[in-house]
Amino acid sequence: MKPVRIGLLGLGVVGGGVWTVLAQNGSEIARRAGRSIEVTAVAVRDVAKARALVGPDVRIVSNALELVSDPDIDVVVELMGGDTFARACILQAIEHGKHVVTANKALLAVHGNEIFAAAQARGVMVAFEAAVAGGIPIIKAIREGLTANRIQWVAGIINGTTNFILSEMRQRGLPFETVLAEAQRLGYAEADPTFDIEGVDAAHKLTLLASLAFGIPVQFDKVTTEGISHLASEDIVHAERLGYRIKLLGITRRRPDGIELRVHPTLVPADCLLANVEGAMNAVLIRGDAVGLSMYYGQGAGALPTASAVVADLVDVARLQMADPEHQVPYLAFQPEAVVDIPVLPMAEVHSSFYLRLRVDDVPGVLADLARILSGAGISVGSMFQQPHGDQQADIIFLTHETREGDVDAALQVMQKQSFVRSDVTRLRVENFS
Amino acid sequence: MKPVRIGLLGLGVVGGGVWTVLAQNGSEIARRAGRSIEVTAVAVRDVAKARALVGPDVRIVSNALELVSDPDIDVVVELMGGDTFARACILQAIEHGKHVVTANKALLAVHGNEIFAAAQARGVMVAFEAAVAGGIPIIKAIREGLTANRIQWVAGIINGTTNFILSEMRQRGLPFETVLAEAQRLGYAEADPTFDIEGVDAAHKLTLLASLAFGIPVQFDKVTTEGISHLASEDIVHAERLGYRIKLLGITRRRPDGIELRVHPTLVPADCLLANVEGAMNAVLIRGDAVGLSMYYGQGAGALPTASAVVADLVDVARLQMADPEHQVPYLAFQPEAVVDIPVLPMAEVHSSFYLRLRVDDVPGVLADLARILSGAGISVGSMFQQPHGDQQADIIFLTHETREGDVDAALQVMQKQSFVRSDVTRLRVENFS
Repeated sequence: MKPVRIGLLGLGVVGGGVWTVLAQNGSEIARRAGRSIEVTAVAVRDVAKARALVGPDVRIVSNALELVSDPDIDVVVELMGGDTFARACILQAIEHGKHVVTANKALLAVHGNEIFAAAQARGVMVAFEAAVAGGIPIIKAIREGLTANRIQWVAGIINGTTNFILSEMRQRGLPFETVLAEAQRLGYAEADPTFDIEGVDAAHKLTLLASLAFGIPVQFDKVTTEGISHLASEDIVHAERLGYRIKLLGITRRRPDGIELRVHPTLVPADCLLANVEGAMNAVLIRGDAVGLSMYYGQGAGALPTASAVVADLVDVARLQMADPEHQVPYLAFQPEAVVDIPVLPMAEVHSSFYLRLRVDDVPGVLADLARILSGAGISVGSMFQQPHGDQQADIIFLTHETREGDVDAALQVMQKQSFVRSDVTRLRVENFS
Repeated sequence: MKPVRIGLLGLGVVGGGVWTVLAQNGSEIARRAGRSIEVTAVAVRDVAKARALVGPDVRIVSNALELVSDPDIDVVVELMGGDTFARACILQAIEHGKHVVTANKALLAVHGNEIFAAAQARGVMVAFEAAVAGGIPIIKAIREGLTANRIQWVAGIINGTTNFILSEMRQRGLPFETVLAEAQRLGYAEADPTFDIEGVDAAHKLTLLASLAFGIPVQFDKVTTEGISHLASEDIVHAERLGYRIKLLGITRRRPDGIELRVHPTLVPADCLLANVEGAMNAVLIRGDAVGLSMYYGQGAGALPTASAVVADLVDVARLQMADPEHQVPYLAFQPEAVVDIPVLPMAEVHSSFYLRLRVDDVPGVLADLARILSGAGISVGSMFQQPHGDQQADIIFLTHETREGDVDAALQVMQKQSFVRSDVTRLRVENFS
């Protein structure tokens, strides 16, 4: 059968990885796909450098827009990143009837609805396995493997940089800044790490996972995002003492009145598998009403793992490109006409357990007052411990049962006004996955 | 669009689960599949009991062969189990141009080549996600998610009964027989548990995983299978002391000269995720050259998890049934004409580390003699400990580095002949997944 001819936009880390995987495993891939996958052309800024990598037979252009209309190209693979130009390239490729494979989570999380609608109208595929959790075929798992389920929630470690930092902070007892500097030195964190450490990258990915799980439009602007840059080492220590570890999780849950959509540091039980995902690895835990719990674990980034996902998408396209559009697998797991706009809940309506830490004057009656404030707000305490701090002060840590976040915030406002409370109250969410 | 009309052969645990999932999540499933999935007819032994479950609108027959040629049925779902009659039904369904979904690992592991060839000739789909690891979409992950990879090995906990027994033996310090009796009482083990505890069920599943991973024919008769019924509690204790846990693993690995294909109790490092898969849960760890390590975890059995996999296959069929056969996803991940018959290695050629335990006379020179026997066979020892046993005897435990199994067996033959060796040598394989 005729090869699938691809145009590669970008030949950086991931683009280079795709080139390597296709070169290295080409025959194995063709055994699966039923045809070979060939890079016909690449679009790069540095033509000379690209020539050294791809050899003389591949067309190289410096303007990606030249490739999106090229009749010799069946599939456009967008690996440039960014949103303005990447968006233009993808939309033009779709207009010209090309299938599109992309790893661009930031683009899809913001412009996905527009892109998928355009692709639907033109009858082409847009595949993006590499956009979430690198090498883990998590999009395929949700979109095709769990189709029998009413998915109840998805919780994932979907940013390797922050998981690496949190693992190091816990295992070596180091503060955030020290570990971040090391992560930057090792190449796990960017020079400007904001997108990773503030949870923005995880929020992009969570946006896509939520759409796949629940059949809702992508809506990045509705994700509540808290990063790890303000996380204190002592909270990691206290959490461990309580039998928990702190992970940056993306969580989306279907509740009767809407969808929770949130990224934040989260205490998880130390003996659950998710807590034991260490270093830069990713993992996604899913609960469906039929399947129960399932988890997917693997590398979340890197040239070859990400290329593994890009090339798997290319094989899907190779296998399925001749299917008429109405029989193609839907972009976001649900048929476009079946996507419904379930409201995203404000954080006050989100339910979880909470870890609370505050410093108080170590005088009689303080604990009783605090307990009264919590119970007055309808919050039930699961465990508590107090640790002297010197200067006749003490740190108190509460672990609450599951409760409405708005109720906790109201109680914290009252707590914060007490004269014996000597610090801001640190409030972290806890998920027991029960 | 027209519904997909299915004929359900068998309405036992899994068949009942499929009925329940379709009834409960029908609209959610149709939102994904683009059409509804309807049970048109069921074949059961007890017609009256089935009528009570499925209501008046579903045709019920007592002979499954009536349904395989029924023009009102698009997909035959075989959930009867067994091999003779199930094979006949599936082959006839294929002959009549029906797509087939089955959970029957025993059938496919033995008759898969014949069934897939017949389906290929007729241009129909045969899907079997439910045959391996219940609710975990592991077949889809390998067949479609990891297509870019040269897969190096697959190692899985793919039998929940034995994993439950091993977890209980370790956690509660109980002997095999006691835990087996409890597992039978709880319904985790059958009245005749042979297929589970002797590793046969895991070998059926491993057969399918190996074909999916490496593009080889199914060849159940080539699997080396050792169960857990002879596993001594003390080996679980010693393993733990060495930093390992014992799991019944199905392992298949591509080596330069062939494929390893084996099921046996295996020591795995206690801090790896696979070691922490407890109770009746399943997990499959895969190493691919591009993706690195990835793991898939979930329930391996039960009505609803298994039904989740069956229905996911039905959604695939619904989405893809109109694709021309040459564009369908290949049954065993590789195109039928690309399947190659790589030899399965004899166990003597398999490589792993080994745990050895033997009882010896506690006299000077014994350890030196044993060490000389091992090193003489080219076996390098990683760690060793000795523990007095009374009666001037001692137990010695060796942990070897990776070595050829044939060399270990030769060394054990020599050891066994030494006058100071007072027991059979217990030999267990160790995998470090490095």
